[in-house]
Amino acid sequence: MNYRNLDRLFNPKSIAMIGASATPVKWGFIVLLNILKEGFKGPVYPVNPKLKTILGVTCYPSLEAIPEPVDLVIITTPAPTVSALIDECGRKGVASVVVITSGFSETGPDGTRMEQEIVAKAQGYGIHLVGPNTMGIFSAKSNLHALMPPVVPLHGGLSMFSQSGNVGVQMLYWGNNKGIGFNKFVSSGNEGDLKGEDYLSYFAEDKDTKVILAYLEGLDPDSKLYQVARKVCRKKPVLIFKGGRTQTGGKAAASHSGAMAVSSRVLRAAFRQAGIIEIENSQGLIDCAKAFSASPIPRGNRVAILTRGGGWGVITADSCEENGLIIPKLSDTIIERMNKILPPYWSHGNPVDMAAVITSEPYLQCMEMLAEWDEVDSVIALGGSIQSAMDFKNDVEGPKELKETLAFAQEFAKEYTAQDDVVLEQTRQLVEKTGKPIIVVTLGEYDNHKSDLMDHQVVSYPTPERAVRALKRMVDYRRFLDSPV
Amino acid sequence: MNYRNLDRLFNPKSIAMIGASATPVKWGFIVLLNILKEGFKGPVYPVNPKLKTILGVTCYPSLEAIPEPVDLVIITTPAPTVSALIDECGRKGVASVVVITSGFSETGPDGTRMEQEIVAKAQGYGIHLVGPNTMGIFSAKSNLHALMPPVVPLHGGLSMFSQSGNVGVQMLYWGNNKGIGFNKFVSSGNEGDLKGEDYLSYFAEDKDTKVILAYLEGLDPDSKLYQVARKVCRKKPVLIFKGGRTQTGGKAAASHSGAMAVSSRVLRAAFRQAGIIEIENSQGLIDCAKAFSASPIPRGNRVAILTRGGGWGVITADSCEENGLIIPKLSDTIIERMNKILPPYWSHGNPVDMAAVITSEPYLQCMEMLAEWDEVDSVIALGGSIQSAMDFKNDVEGPKELKETLAFAQEFAKEYTAQDDVVLEQTRQLVEKTGKPIIVVTLGEYDNHKSDLMDHQVVSYPTPERAVRALKRMVDYRRFLDSPV
Repeated sequence: MNYRNLDRLFNPKSIAMIGASATPVKWGFIVLLNILKEGFKGPVYPVNPKLKTILGVTCYPSLEAIPEPVDLVIITTPAPTVSALIDECGRKGVASVVVITSGFSETGPDGTRMEQEIVAKAQGYGIHLVGPNTMGIFSAKSNLHALMPPVVPLHGGLSMFSQSGNVGVQMLYWGNNKGIGFNKFVSSGNEGDLKGEDYLSYFAEDKDTKVILAYLEGLDPDSKLYQVARKVCRKKPVLIFKGGRTQTGGKAAASHSGAMAVSSRVLRAAFRQAGIIEIENSQGLIDCAKAFSASPIPRGNRVAILTRGGGWGVITADSCEENGLIIPKLSDTIIERMNKILPPYWSHGNPVDMAAVITSEPYLQCMEMLAEWDEVDSVIALGGSIQSAMDFKNDVEGPKELKETLAFAQEFAKEYTAQDDVVLEQTRQLVEKTGKPIIVVTLGEYDNHKSDLMDHQVVSYPTPERAVRALKRMVDYRRFLDSPV
Repeated sequence: MNYRNLDRLFNPKSIAMIGASATPVKWGFIVLLNILKEGFKGPVYPVNPKLKTILGVTCYPSLEAIPEPVDLVIITTPAPTVSALIDECGRKGVASVVVITSGFSETGPDGTRMEQEIVAKAQGYGIHLVGPNTMGIFSAKSNLHALMPPVVPLHGGLSMFSQSGNVGVQMLYWGNNKGIGFNKFVSSGNEGDLKGEDYLSYFAEDKDTKVILAYLEGLDPDSKLYQVARKVCRKKPVLIFKGGRTQTGGKAAASHSGAMAVSSRVLRAAFRQAGIIEIENSQGLIDCAKAFSASPIPRGNRVAILTRGGGWGVITADSCEENGLIIPKLSDTIIERMNKILPPYWSHGNPVDMAAVITSEPYLQCMEMLAEWDEVDSVIALGGSIQSAMDFKNDVEGPKELKETLAFAQEFAKEYTAQDDVVLEQTRQLVEKTGKPIIVVTLGEYDNHKSDLMDHQVVSYPTPERAVRALKRMVDYRRFLDSPV
C-alpha cells in the first residue's frame, strides 16, 4: 500500500494564504480570520499583491516574496488561477496545498480538465493536494483552523474525513455540544489527489487518532478504501456514514460531488467484511462517535439495566433484545445484596427497577454491584425524570406557608442537582475499575454532562434506544476484533 | 360501546386529598403541593385528622366533615385503608377517585384481592376510579396538577394516557422542552376500573383534545381498545408506543405493571387495521406528537427538499426514499425562477441545494416556490450550520485589527440570529396559506424555536432523518383516512 505521510499537511510549520482578502464577505478573509483567531502555532503569511497588511498581519505580493520556507498553502483564488499557483508552490518547495476554490470536476468537463491539470502538477512536484472544492482542514495539535466556518472543535482522539464539507463541519459543532473532541478533520472535497483511503491510512498510523470517522458519498468501484480499511479496522474503530444509498440520494450526490454510485448492498457487504462500522443515520454517527471515543469496548453482549422507573426498564429491555443484546437473569447473590438497600417492591430482576428510589447512594451501590457482576459486559444506567423534575417557579399565589415550602423545595432541588457531578465522577471511576462500559441515559434534553468526555469515560444519551444502538455497535466491533484474521 | 364521560374527573369543581400530609417527603404532601402551587380552579380540601392546616390551607378530619360537595378525591393512604375510604366517597356522592397508593394487583394475589374489592365498590357507587398505583392526572382547563412530580406541562391539544407513570411524565417534560402542549394526561396505573379504552373513547369525544397519545405495556387479548380505536382513529390521530414487545421487555413489564403479553406481530397487525399510528421508540413518540399537534397532515407522499448544503440534501433524499416518500423532479418553471435568485452552481433539481447561500431572503423565496408547487405535498427545509457557526469568543490574542474584526463579526452574528424569528413567522404563514407541512431541520442542538408550537404550526427537528420519520407517519395517517371505512 502506498502510504502517504500527511504530518506536514496537518501539522505544518508555516502557512501561506493565497487569495487572502480584506473584504469580510470573501472566503479569503474568513478562512484567514479563522486561522488567526485560533492562534495557529507558526507564522501565517497572507498573500495579496494589492495589500500591505490584513488583520494587522504583514501581507506579501506573492508566494515567492515570502522570505521564509512555507509548509502549507491555502488557495481561495478563482479556479483558472490555481494551475499557475501550483507551479509557484512547486518552486517554493511547499509540502501541501489546500484548494478551497470550487468550480472544478463538480461542474462538468471543463472543470474536470482543470482539476486533472492541477492534480498532475501537484503530484509531479510531490505536493499533497486537498480538494479542490473543500471546506478546509483542522488539526488540534497545531491549532490549525483552516476552515470556512468559524467552528472551534474540542480537542480529543477522533479524526474525520468527510466528502461533504457541510456534513463534516456539522459533526464538529455537534461534537462541541456533546463533549466529543476531535484530533484532525479534513473536508476532502473532490478528492482530486488525496483520497479517502489516504486519510484513512494516515489516521491509522497517527498515534493521536484513536477513532476514525468518515462521511462518504461516492466510491469508485475499484476504490482502495476497502483494502485499506481491512487493515485499519483491526487497529482502530472506523465509523462510516454513507450518503447516496438510494437512487434519489445517489442522484443528488452525483450533482453535488460528482460521486459514483455503488450498489448499497454491495457496499454494505464490503463494509462488514472490512470491519467498518456502518452507521445508519446522522444522529447515530455522532452518538457512536461519542461511545467509541470515550467508552471502553465491551467484552461481549450481556447487559445489566438499572432504572428508577419500571416503564423505562421495559423500553430498554425491548431495545436490547431487538438489537441482539442479552439481559441475563439476576444472580441470587445480587438479589440478596440489593434486598438490603432497596425497598421491598423493587423488581428483583434484570432490569433492576429501583422503584422510585431517587437518592444517589443506593443508585451508585446498585450500579457497582452490576458493573462488577461477572455475568454482564456492560451496564445501562437510566437517570430518570428526577433532575428535570426539580424546576419550581417563584411567583406562586397562595398562603405564606406555601411560598415558604416552595422556596425550600427550590433549595433542595439545587442540592440534588449538585449531586450529579458526584454521581458522574463515581460512575467514571467504576468504568475505570471494571473496564466495562457504563452507558448513562439522562432522559433529559441534553445527552451529556457538559464535561470533557475524553477524561470522564462515561457516555450518556437522552433516550435508552440511542444508548442501546451505540452499545450494539461497540459489541459488533468486539465481535469483529475477536474474529479470525 | 359503553362510553364513560370523564368530564368530572378531568375538570372537577372541588378536590379532597385524603392522606394529605405536612411531612415533605410524603406523597400526600408533594401531590397536595403540586395541586396548590399551580392554582387549581376550585376549592381544595386536605383531609388529615391530626392537622388543622397544611400549607396554610384548612384541613378536615374526614371526607364527611367537609361541608361542601366534593367532585374528585385523591388517595395516598396505605392500600388496606382504601376500601373503607371508597365507602366514604360513595356516601359523599364523589364522582371520581384517583388512587395513587400502590401495593395492589402489581404485588401479587393479596393485592389483587384488595384491588378487586375497591374496584367493585367504586363501580357499585358509580364512581370512576383511576389506578390504583398511578402517578396521577393533569388537566389544562382546570389547572389540575394532581401529579407526583412537580411537572407543569404546556397547554395544548395533546391528551395522553400512559400505563407507565414514569414514561408518561417524561413525555410532559419533553413536551415542555420541545414546545408541545398537553390538554389532559393520566397515568392509568393498574387500570382496575378505568382502562385505556375508557380514556381513549373519552378523549375521542373531548373537543379540546386534538391528538391522542398512549404508552401501553399490556393488553388483554380481549381488550376493547382495538374496537374503540377503530372508531377514534377516523376522527383524531392516535399515536401509540408499546413497551414489552420482546420476551425480555414483556417479562419486565409483567413484574412492573402485571401486564399481559400479546404477540408483537398480532398487536402490530391489529394496530394497523385500527388506524393506530404505532411509534417505534421513545424519541419517535415525542417527535410524532409534535408533528401531529402542530402541523397539517400532508395530502400525499411527495416531498420537496430545500437545503443550504449538498451533503444534507443527499442524506434527506436517502431517508425519504427509504421511507417511501417521493422526491419529484423539479419543474422547468421553478428551475427558471430559481435561476434568477440563486448562484449558477445551485443544484438545479430536487433537493434544491442553494449551495452555501446563507441569507434568509432567497431561502424564503425558494421555500415559497416549493410550498406552492402543485407536484409536492410537503417541504423539508434544512437550516444548516449557519446559526451555530456564529459563535465567537472575545479573548483572542493578536493585532488590534483582528480584535476589532471579531467584535464586528459578533455583532453580525447577533443580527443574523435575530432573523430566525422572522424566518419562522414567514414559514408559519406559508404553512397557513398552502395548508402543506413545512418541516424544518435545524441541524442544531435544539429541535424547536422555543415558541409555542400550537400557534406556529411549524415543526422542527435536529436531524433530517427524524423529520422524515415524523412526516412518514403523517403520510401513513393520510393514507388511512383516505382508505374506505
